[in-house]
Amino acid sequence: MKKNIKLLVEYDGTNYVGWQRQPKFQGESIQGLLEESLEKIVCHQVQVIGAGRTDSGVHALGQVANFFTSSSIPVERLPAAVSSLLPRDIVVRKAREVPEDFHARYSAVEKTYRYTILVGPCRSAFEWRYSYHIPYQLNLEKMYRAAELMVGSHDFSSFCSQGSPVKNFVRTLKECRITNDDRHVNLEVTADGFLYNMVRIIVGTLLEVGRGRWEPEKVMEIIAARDRRLAGPTAPPQGLILVNVKY
Amino acid sequence: MKKNIKLLVEYDGTNYVGWQRQPKFQGESIQGLLEESLEKIVCHQVQVIGAGRTDSGVHALGQVANFFTSSSIPVERLPAAVSSLLPRDIVVRKAREVPEDFHARYSAVEKTYRYTILVGPCRSAFEWRYSYHIPYQLNLEKMYRAAELMVGSHDFSSFCSQGSPVKNFVRTLKECRITNDDRHVNLEVTADGFLYNMVRIIVGTLLEVGRGRWEPEKVMEIIAARDRRLAGPTAPPQGLILVNVKY
Repeated sequence: MKKNIKLLVEYDGTNYVGWQRQPKFQGESIQGLLEESLEKIVCHQVQVIGAGRTDSGVHALGQVANFFTSSSIPVERLPAAVSSLLPRDIVVRKAREVPEDFHARYSAVEKTYRYTILVGPCRSAFEWRYSYHIPYQLNLEKMYRAAELMVGSHDFSSFCSQGSPVKNFVRTLKECRITNDDRHVNLEVTADGFLYNMVRIIVGTLLEVGRGRWEPEKVMEIIAARDRRLAGPTAPPQGLILVNVKY
Repeated sequence: MKKNIKLLVEYDGTNYVGWQRQPKFQGESIQGLLEESLEKIVCHQVQVIGAGRTDSGVHALGQVANFFTSSSIPVERLPAAVSSLLPRDIVVRKAREVPEDFHARYSAVEKTYRYTILVGPCRSAFEWRYSYHIPYQLNLEKMYRAAELMVGSHDFSSFCSQGSPVKNFVRTLKECRITNDDRHVNLEVTADGFLYNMVRIIVGTLLEVGRGRWEPEKVMEIIAARDRRLAGPTAPPQGLILVNVKY
């Protein structure tokens, strides 16, 4: 009998080509390294399915993955066993058996991403891997408002990079919230699903609002136009982190 | 007229041989990179003096350094100019002119270091550069007590690694405080000066207390013995950060 195992995975995406396995000469992927490590433990070939296919440089605190195994290794031993074979910037935090029909990507009902912006004249020696540094001040009030206007079910074609095979561009943003402390502005977004580069284009758009180039209401026009060229630029990957996946 | 310039420097020490310049084949030093970058700006040879000679893997949020220059570049332009020539994990945050007799090391009256311990069964994909992971639980009450007992003026020979040229081993610990949140235990120490590896040996000793091998009172014996072999092991560098230097 094959068991279906659900994993909670944390990683720093800086040194990887992203979640998805690529031809070896392009570099290491999280999926590829996970599969190789699991295969050494379960002693058969493994295919790992991830909830979100994060890009190169994008991180995860709460990536969820699943795979099938015929191994009799106790599932509670898996996290330590796999993590010991993985590089220091990838960790399997939890593992448990789930029903046969659980699929990390298709069963997900909600995902939460956070994007971190470091604001101020000075970059940071510690945070460059995990934030996007903006040397100018941002109008937070306007950013709050623009973020609020994005919440709801919309066709988000304007917020999708080319190269995505999806046909339905409607997504429901349940939360799109700006928070801040004295040095950071963070965007937290929760949706039933995300299009390719959607969070990073939302950030790029909100930054145009924050620096005063666009009024908050412009995001309504951008959504309505269903044209990628109208939204802001795609913000860089290092500020983005997959925080949580809900099933 | 030569001006004396004081710098506030932040760095991630992971990829460096430490603060102090070493023969090139051993790797890059913070001091060396700072000197090279400053020389390109001021157009003459520069010698940078640092407040604390941090080891390889040790970090700084508030390292202070000074150097003399005959350049007429406005001092307020220096941080951005130097930082633009430095790698991403080294930043000059501030610069200002100080009196001729200011010496980053000898003028310092107090330094504060923080050591971060990550406690729990699971290592972290993000914090491995900045913490020491301990997979067992610690008795915090006993660690608080042992830390308290270290405060004061003592001969800290037992907490000094060999290879240090100093003759006077008396230092005054003004603060030695354990704090914690749900995943971390931190040690914050402030003293008029530190011996070689002193903070890391204090941490190694407090961990022996925390894991129940020694009673808190044993630190008094260790201090009194003036014998390095009696103290705990030297904790690894990556948990250590130079937080502040007072003048």
